[in-house]
Amino acid sequence: VKSEFDFIQNIKKTYNLWAIGDDCAVLPKDDATDMVVTADMLVEDIDFQLDWTTPEFLGHKALAVSLSDIAAMGAEPKWAMLSIAVEEKLWKSDFVERFYEGWHELARQFDVELVGGDVSRAPERLVIDSIVGGEVQKGRAIRRSGAKPGDAIFVSGSLGGAAGGLALLEKRIRYSDSLPDPERELLIRQLCPTPQLELAREIQQKQVATSMIDISDGLSSDLHHLCEASGVGAKIDASHLPVDKNLKKLLDLNSALELALNGGEDFELLFAAPRESTSILENLPVKRIGEITPNVGVVEFMLDGKRQILERKGYRHF
Amino acid sequence: VKSEFDFIQNIKKTYNLWAIGDDCAVLPKDDATDMVVTADMLVEDIDFQLDWTTPEFLGHKALAVSLSDIAAMGAEPKWAMLSIAVEEKLWKSDFVERFYEGWHELARQFDVELVGGDVSRAPERLVIDSIVGGEVQKGRAIRRSGAKPGDAIFVSGSLGGAAGGLALLEKRIRYSDSLPDPERELLIRQLCPTPQLELAREIQQKQVATSMIDISDGLSSDLHHLCEASGVGAKIDASHLPVDKNLKKLLDLNSALELALNGGEDFELLFAAPRESTSILENLPVKRIGEITPNVGVVEFMLDGKRQILERKGYRHF
Repeated sequence: VKSEFDFIQNIKKTYNLWAIGDDCAVLPKDDATDMVVTADMLVEDIDFQLDWTTPEFLGHKALAVSLSDIAAMGAEPKWAMLSIAVEEKLWKSDFVERFYEGWHELARQFDVELVGGDVSRAPERLVIDSIVGGEVQKGRAIRRSGAKPGDAIFVSGSLGGAAGGLALLEKRIRYSDSLPDPERELLIRQLCPTPQLELAREIQQKQVATSMIDISDGLSSDLHHLCEASGVGAKIDASHLPVDKNLKKLLDLNSALELALNGGEDFELLFAAPRESTSILENLPVKRIGEITPNVGVVEFMLDGKRQILERKGYRHF
Repeated sequence: VKSEFDFIQNIKKTYNLWAIGDDCAVLPKDDATDMVVTADMLVEDIDFQLDWTTPEFLGHKALAVSLSDIAAMGAEPKWAMLSIAVEEKLWKSDFVERFYEGWHELARQFDVELVGGDVSRAPERLVIDSIVGGEVQKGRAIRRSGAKPGDAIFVSGSLGGAAGGLALLEKRIRYSDSLPDPERELLIRQLCPTPQLELAREIQQKQVATSMIDISDGLSSDLHHLCEASGVGAKIDASHLPVDKNLKKLLDLNSALELALNGGEDFELLFAAPRESTSILENLPVKRIGEITPNVGVVEFMLDGKRQILERKGYRHF
């Protein structure tokens, strides 16, 4: 079966679509500014389950995934559109109002204006398409394609928490305010993720990142994406990975590491920067996890002093 | 049950969303230019049936509906995104490639660049979200809200053809190149609509339209939308309506008139302009069908010398 990545590569080549292949498309806006724009589709029973979440969390997440793409370009979000297809039963409930409430609370936080979209009826499952437009100083969008051999690789925050939350949901654990940590925090990582816009702004200001991507499919997949776009390889060290602290409380180290490597939807930032810039980044919540190599398309993984090849095992739609 | 229109009005009011309510949102781009942007969601078994169309027609239509929104603002399309959720069976066939082929053939015609989007898996039904961005000279976007009492009302092309095509599909008539007219032409109106971008450009150049909308829900609905946005009413004359010539061959006059009034998806342009401009518009494929009145929200309909009130009977999602 063709993968979605192969399909997109093929469509790109067939139709000469050079703008495609980053977290956002970059388009000229005016003399000083570029515009960035992204779309993310969320499908019920594929990307979420209605009985696993709340309408407010889902509205928040629909916007968060797109804001994370804007952050990954080092850009600022400005406007958004929201298209939803919703079945009549859900339409008649207060679901859509509560969904918009969750959406708007996050939008307000980052001053994002809802300017349009579409509301359609669906025969049964909910489908959401989240579109966000943003701005970045001309020529300063941080693409996936600029990493150079020798660059250090950094990742923000912690990894594996969202996948840990998903695992809890699959074990029939549901979110409630009174749920004890670490379970509650893991579910929040999965259901109500935080886009790293503030951190992205600081990274942008320091002007050191040569390439950046957000972790949506999983570290192993997204590092491969970054390497392929940059025509490089990477080597990362297990002992440096910022494995989610709640995961470590619930799982043995190997299982936690597996989720940190291959679990998706952490929406952390993964970026490369010249080694010399490590000190400049010292005060930011980022961790150096490895370095870029000239070994095109190969991601090496050091575990207990042994070298392995890291396959991309993150989320694939097909 | 709340209608989608009421819902959108309510969300607009709750969150102070002033940009919402036209065919496109209008956003500042640079000193000379505004940007317009629109999103349209198409859902299998609601907006289309896969066995009624071809992948190429569907790709064409997905883009055409959004280009029609761009045309209705008097703007020029520039870039597009396409999000699709597709089930595995369809994914494994050549459906998606043929869909993109139909999409691209229309995109090429109007120099629209695909810059992004999303591909997601769906449990069964196909869902498409079509996003198009365009440009218009600053302050020159033609909104729904500018119609003045006394303005003449114009409509482009012909009405009811797309609904006629839909009626044929419901009677199990399917498109083929060898199908005789008028059936073939009606099916083309439904399955492969033409966005009126060239005409919109001419209307824009003449600078006479005070308000404009595209006919997607149906003349009665869309004229109501235009009147509500402008705070006016309208009076139209049955004898002036450009009823599709193929419809008239297949149906009695009353049935044809009913489809021309309430059938959706003709994607013609409906606009108001000062009466004095009628001569300026003479050489364009538009017909004067009535006039704007001060009778807020009321659409009068003259049939055989008798005055009726025209309710909005066009397509509603809920």
